[in-house]
Amino acid sequence: MWAELLPVGRFDASGGYRRHAWTAADAECRAWFQQQAADRGLAYELDRNGNQWAWYGDPTADGAIVTGSHLDSVPDGGAFDGPLGVVSSFAALDALRERGFAPVRPLAITNFVDEEGARFGVACVGSRLSAGVLTKDQAFALRDADGVGLPDAMEAAGQDPSALGKDGERLSRIAAYVELHVEQGRFLAETPHPVGVASAIWPHGRWRFDFHGEANHAGTTRLDDRRDPMLSYANTVLAARKKARLRGALATFGKVSVEPNGTNAIASLVRGWLDSRAADEATLTALVEEIATAAVERAERDGVRAEVVRESYTPVVDFDAPLRDRLAALLGPGTPVLPTGAGHDAGILSSAIPTAMLFVRNPTGVSHSPSERADEADCLAGTAALADVLEELTCR
Amino acid sequence: MWAELLPVGRFDASGGYRRHAWTAADAECRAWFQQQAADRGLAYELDRNGNQWAWYGDPTADGAIVTGSHLDSVPDGGAFDGPLGVVSSFAALDALRERGFAPVRPLAITNFVDEEGARFGVACVGSRLSAGVLTKDQAFALRDADGVGLPDAMEAAGQDPSALGKDGERLSRIAAYVELHVEQGRFLAETPHPVGVASAIWPHGRWRFDFHGEANHAGTTRLDDRRDPMLSYANTVLAARKKARLRGALATFGKVSVEPNGTNAIASLVRGWLDSRAADEATLTALVEEIATAAVERAERDGVRAEVVRESYTPVVDFDAPLRDRLAALLGPGTPVLPTGAGHDAGILSSAIPTAMLFVRNPTGVSHSPSERADEADCLAGTAALADVLEELTCR
Repeated sequence: MWAELLPVGRFDASGGYRRHAWTAADAECRAWFQQQAADRGLAYELDRNGNQWAWYGDPTADGAIVTGSHLDSVPDGGAFDGPLGVVSSFAALDALRERGFAPVRPLAITNFVDEEGARFGVACVGSRLSAGVLTKDQAFALRDADGVGLPDAMEAAGQDPSALGKDGERLSRIAAYVELHVEQGRFLAETPHPVGVASAIWPHGRWRFDFHGEANHAGTTRLDDRRDPMLSYANTVLAARKKARLRGALATFGKVSVEPNGTNAIASLVRGWLDSRAADEATLTALVEEIATAAVERAERDGVRAEVVRESYTPVVDFDAPLRDRLAALLGPGTPVLPTGAGHDAGILSSAIPTAMLFVRNPTGVSHSPSERADEADCLAGTAALADVLEELTCR
Repeated sequence: MWAELLPVGRFDASGGYRRHAWTAADAECRAWFQQQAADRGLAYELDRNGNQWAWYGDPTADGAIVTGSHLDSVPDGGAFDGPLGVVSSFAALDALRERGFAPVRPLAITNFVDEEGARFGVACVGSRLSAGVLTKDQAFALRDADGVGLPDAMEAAGQDPSALGKDGERLSRIAAYVELHVEQGRFLAETPHPVGVASAIWPHGRWRFDFHGEANHAGTTRLDDRRDPMLSYANTVLAARKKARLRGALATFGKVSVEPNGTNAIASLVRGWLDSRAADEATLTALVEEIATAAVERAERDGVRAEVVRESYTPVVDFDAPLRDRLAALLGPGTPVLPTGAGHDAGILSSAIPTAMLFVRNPTGVSHSPSERADEADCLAGTAALADVLEELTCR
């Protein structure tokens, strides 16, 4: 099962994956999902938002237990982020059926579309639409870097975009959603436990820092006559790191755009995007305010105008406490319960239904990179844990 | 004359010019040059490298005096850098003819092609080819950002690239080249003189700083587990500025490229280009070594690998001393004699023939930007000075 999926959308130069929503690589992954459902005699469904469902039991009955994850990737992402959850779901079902699975509720396996948001800039599009936190109008306004709109991309992939939107009736029949995911840090790597349970998703957001200076000749303009926004940007990058460390939070500048971006030209505009996350919203707000203040102060010294725009913000997600505690108890004493800084479909859906997540140990902690890893033994432990969880939830 | 050229290649959004070599805007500028020659009954020539010549007198005679500049621009450049020299050359000739010009040597006005190097990344392509410091093979290997090769671009513009190369015979017939240019700093702006004479071009070069880190998830990777090259880059930008100030030199990072350049991804690679210039080569070498050392030291602390590659280097150019002194004396007592940090065709040609430059006062000192300026009175003073210089050189 895993072997079939490994070559799809792999980019040889980096060894990473480029499985972006509604591309050919995504279509191959989706065909694989449909084939897995068919091979197991599961009822296959495609919902109004393009999410895929494979049903064991009656799709129309109430109280369904759902598991799954996503198959798309970030640019040059790793093999595990997303696919591990989908593959483990099918493997867990196989294990349960070998044990003589006799559920009293329906079970579904899902592939939520466009979780990474690599193509259209918004993450978790499939689950956001279903939960009603992204509207059809908002989705129709999304464009990729080539200017292709989301509805056109869907149509090109053979999916009808006309019914995009909230799927409340479907969600109302779901009793719980459990998503298994490779851990994206080294929390479990420092414990003897291959599998942990998620407690919360840190609040996180994206802020754009625009530094407006003055284009000028790099070879003839005296230092004192310059209004160089690269200096303000550089100082802000270092300030963000320092202030995040002092608050035990995260702050990252990973994306920059420069105008005119010429070797012998002082920049007229440097735009940097800050990704910041913290354990609670008060800390996050205070941290970003501190970084913005540092940016403005330095910019004034450089004769530069700094502007900070919040582009996105996601409040803290506390996963359903009874479900979380039930899973942790089931997985045995000492099972780690850990927060994460990353967004997930399970986080989006938590506004509508009880959700939980299992994390599988990642020896390097690396994520969104070809060097993302999980040991085979830990993946098998993850599948076993998921099987136990699904049995507990569907058979009682 | 000036009015006809003003709208060509102007980009409305920025108010700046995009007259890149062998584009449609460049072709319009070149047609304008040819028309100016025709209007004055000057013999028009296109040389093997695409430089344009307009001759007053016998193009085949020895001891010619040549003046001119270039008509191409940097991205979103100003109106004066280049065109002021060409327009002033034609205006100076007109003024001389009104005075009853009786030269004993031929006079030519030139437009050197692709001075800015905005499209193919190498500056002064036309004069470098003619002087033999850029070979045909090197020129044929040049590509623009879209992958179009220089010979293909020339052919698309109707110019035969097959004869590109050193033009020693032509240069051997030139006794002196004088280029008038808007000043690219504020030296003259702080004097009562509208026109100055160039002493030298500072040695300058371009160094690429590659910072190799590790791509990772910005939301889940602990600060201590990161190898973030953006931090090393930012620290190097600030170090370069500080060390340049201490040495009275220039150091600029104006161009950056980031991989994967995603908002929620720690960068795997940050590439920054350093432009640095100083009054002498020893200072420049020592400064760049200091900046490289600072980059490597910080990178080690960040778990990042830093690599510094010199991409180009131009030694100091001292303009022909007798010619420089003759022009300064002609323009009157107290005429400023000033160095510049910018490269010019006159600098390239100085390896083959005596060259000199006149600078026209720039009130803001801004260059390579739409806000580049020269007052009309100063432009007229520049034309008058150039006419006096050309009369002195051609009539004695």
